[in-house]
Amino acid sequence: MASDSVLLGTIDSETLNNTILNPGSIQINVTGAFIVDDLLYEDAESIPETNDIALPFQNHDVSHVAIDIGGSLAKIVYYTSNESLTNSQEDLGPHINKKILNTNDSDSGDELQIDPTKGGRLNFHKIETERISELIQFIAKLIKFYNKNIHIMATGGGAHKFYNRIMDELNVEITKEDEMECLIVGLDFFITEIPNEVFLYSESNPMQFVNDINKENNNIYPYLLVNIGSGVSMIKVTGPSNFIRVGGSSLGGGTLWGLLSLLTEANSYDEMLANASKGDNSNVDMLVGDIYGTDYGKIGLKSTTIASSFGKVFQKQNGPDLSARRSKFNPDDISRSLLYAISNNIGQIAYLQAKIHDLERIYFGGSYIRGHPQTMNTLSYAINFWSEGTKNAYFLRHEGYLGAVGAFLKRQPTGWGRKNSFTVGGSENILNGVLSKLDALNVNKDYE
Amino acid sequence: MASDSVLLGTIDSETLNNTILNPGSIQINVTGAFIVDDLLYEDAESIPETNDIALPFQNHDVSHVAIDIGGSLAKIVYYTSNESLTNSQEDLGPHINKKILNTNDSDSGDELQIDPTKGGRLNFHKIETERISELIQFIAKLIKFYNKNIHIMATGGGAHKFYNRIMDELNVEITKEDEMECLIVGLDFFITEIPNEVFLYSESNPMQFVNDINKENNNIYPYLLVNIGSGVSMIKVTGPSNFIRVGGSSLGGGTLWGLLSLLTEANSYDEMLANASKGDNSNVDMLVGDIYGTDYGKIGLKSTTIASSFGKVFQKQNGPDLSARRSKFNPDDISRSLLYAISNNIGQIAYLQAKIHDLERIYFGGSYIRGHPQTMNTLSYAINFWSEGTKNAYFLRHEGYLGAVGAFLKRQPTGWGRKNSFTVGGSENILNGVLSKLDALNVNKDYE
Repeated sequence: MASDSVLLGTIDSETLNNTILNPGSIQINVTGAFIVDDLLYEDAESIPETNDIALPFQNHDVSHVAIDIGGSLAKIVYYTSNESLTNSQEDLGPHINKKILNTNDSDSGDELQIDPTKGGRLNFHKIETERISELIQFIAKLIKFYNKNIHIMATGGGAHKFYNRIMDELNVEITKEDEMECLIVGLDFFITEIPNEVFLYSESNPMQFVNDINKENNNIYPYLLVNIGSGVSMIKVTGPSNFIRVGGSSLGGGTLWGLLSLLTEANSYDEMLANASKGDNSNVDMLVGDIYGTDYGKIGLKSTTIASSFGKVFQKQNGPDLSARRSKFNPDDISRSLLYAISNNIGQIAYLQAKIHDLERIYFGGSYIRGHPQTMNTLSYAINFWSEGTKNAYFLRHEGYLGAVGAFLKRQPTGWGRKNSFTVGGSENILNGVLSKLDALNVNKDYE
Repeated sequence: MASDSVLLGTIDSETLNNTILNPGSIQINVTGAFIVDDLLYEDAESIPETNDIALPFQNHDVSHVAIDIGGSLAKIVYYTSNESLTNSQEDLGPHINKKILNTNDSDSGDELQIDPTKGGRLNFHKIETERISELIQFIAKLIKFYNKNIHIMATGGGAHKFYNRIMDELNVEITKEDEMECLIVGLDFFITEIPNEVFLYSESNPMQFVNDINKENNNIYPYLLVNIGSGVSMIKVTGPSNFIRVGGSSLGGGTLWGLLSLLTEANSYDEMLANASKGDNSNVDMLVGDIYGTDYGKIGLKSTTIASSFGKVFQKQNGPDLSARRSKFNPDDISRSLLYAISNNIGQIAYLQAKIHDLERIYFGGSYIRGHPQTMNTLSYAINFWSEGTKNAYFLRHEGYLGAVGAFLKRQPTGWGRKNSFTVGGSENILNGVLSKLDALNVNKDYE
């Protein structure tokens, strides 16, 4: 793919040369992009990583890094080219020195010829926000890897809170980007550019990919984005740069993690999720059947419906002694009950917001979900139950990185994020992408 | 007040004689009703009681008892006449043998002449549902007090679950009544019949009575009833017998009580509320300021807004040891955080439901509230914040007894629950009340 020469046809060569030569404003090519299936290095300390995205036709280095620093987790997105990986002399750890991809890694079904010495991958990495110094050290390693100054695109609350510290310690330039805006830019990119990214969840089909949303430009709107991190934000999106935060909830991931870290021995979120998978919430929750002895059929409440989360716990028979009370309840049951309670609650509020704003598609993003089947099942079930099947819950494989990818893209004035570029790798599409992206950058936010 | 002779004017004497002679279908007179201010007997075991309601012109015994058995609490409503109290030979305990009321107890401002040897009081009493045998013993005492067979009007899930047991042990007749229906009948009664019952809450004026809702018949609709017991039910009410349960939440009182009984030493709900009053949730919750270092002004989130309930708890720095983690957080702070989380959440869902159904008035009932200032303040604040002042949160002094009073009233075919009877004690009103109540009993439920 000689995309450079194609672009020269309509964009003046000075602009293009600037774009190529200036770090941080280089062309990025998503032709033939696919999600990488290689197993990633894990240790006890690290958070399991989200799969990277191969960009087989991205032939220039990109030396800007995007960070999205939330209340609990900092997310980092950066690009490593196969060429740089080949030339890299130093061992910069498993998150940077990854294997070089070739054609056989692609699951996109494309017929494109991929040159394994070219291209590279978009990397996704998380570090707890409280370990901000490790985040800064990690960026320092990337600077070593790129062997030049880099620019940092930063979003999330921590972009403001840690702005001076990061700038001072790394001696880099940082651009702060609005959090909601980045979420939307990131989500739009994933919906329209990355195949096998968006999916519907059901127990019988846990990952039913929805690639047809990508097929036509601009029919992805309107939608509701429910971003579940430590807390929850709900954003109504009616166009590439038209959105409004319609609501939120303080009952999010931070609530689940926080309460479970006081109620169980679990030391990581994945341990908590594993416990929840083994638990039986009916030992902790009061079900309709516990109160009625049967269904409350008149108003459609089944005997298995949860009437009160944790409703079986506070009883005199469990005694006046705290440790005795605690010993009566199983940590797995507690974990499952709380996972249900928080997920159901978010699902219900999301449904109510979608109803008020007349939105049929609800995307769930954020690091709360983590590809966990019970979580997705509960969210899906809640949307389906409340909407009587009229609304759909969509999930993403890079759910936690909407903001970080959005910030990464904000550094790209042209060429990145061309609609449908992965389905047809032609020059016309590339050009259309450039122009539409330039349009889109006239951001018209609508904070009502 | 010679109400009997007045009624004879339009209701045939046979009906009236039946009404008087048959236990359980006797006339009840709410003229001059007022909420009693006497201090009620309390001990460590009992739940603090809700004030009784004096019925100075109710001159016949009422020997039916209403029970509303919920998931956590059973509520009992029964009438004791001053005459029976005077004649009672046995000590049946403080919940039955109460002092006889006279004119001076009234705070209603009425000019009615009250005869202290007549009238009586409507009694309100709670027992934990798990202590169902005590409930049954209590009803047995009432049977002794009334010295005749009584009829039991039962609602709530426990009316079904414990139906056979209560009938067998007490050898009484029980009528089961629908839970939602009883809540509405009870609430309508409190709104229209009891002065100084409904109030608005604000920190500067914690109990601003709203008696003017009572002034005109039938302008009390439509409204949303949010009944918070172990779980939450939300009911849209458009007329005396037109209602639909529009939603609910499993995050209710049972969740707060259950979680706090695993997180703190508190052994009673009142202890939990007392702890919450002393706590500072910002030691536990992640505020917007903790994430941003400042406000997120662009979307109107203040630095003091709770971004994530319990969001400060799950941090590596709090260590891998459960008991060490627990020791880092104060039970009072935990209690306050959780009270806020649950109350805010109910407030938000109530607002969204009220918005969807275009309802301006939101009544909060159920035993969760318990007259606790922080709870009411949080619910009020949530409604006000989300609705931008367009909707009002109303509270009730007998919040926990809507269902039980509704069941009590269902036994009354005539005369009980006359609109505005307490403002004008005339015969015409009594008659209107009789007729309108007969109308209202053609229940036309609307379970969509």
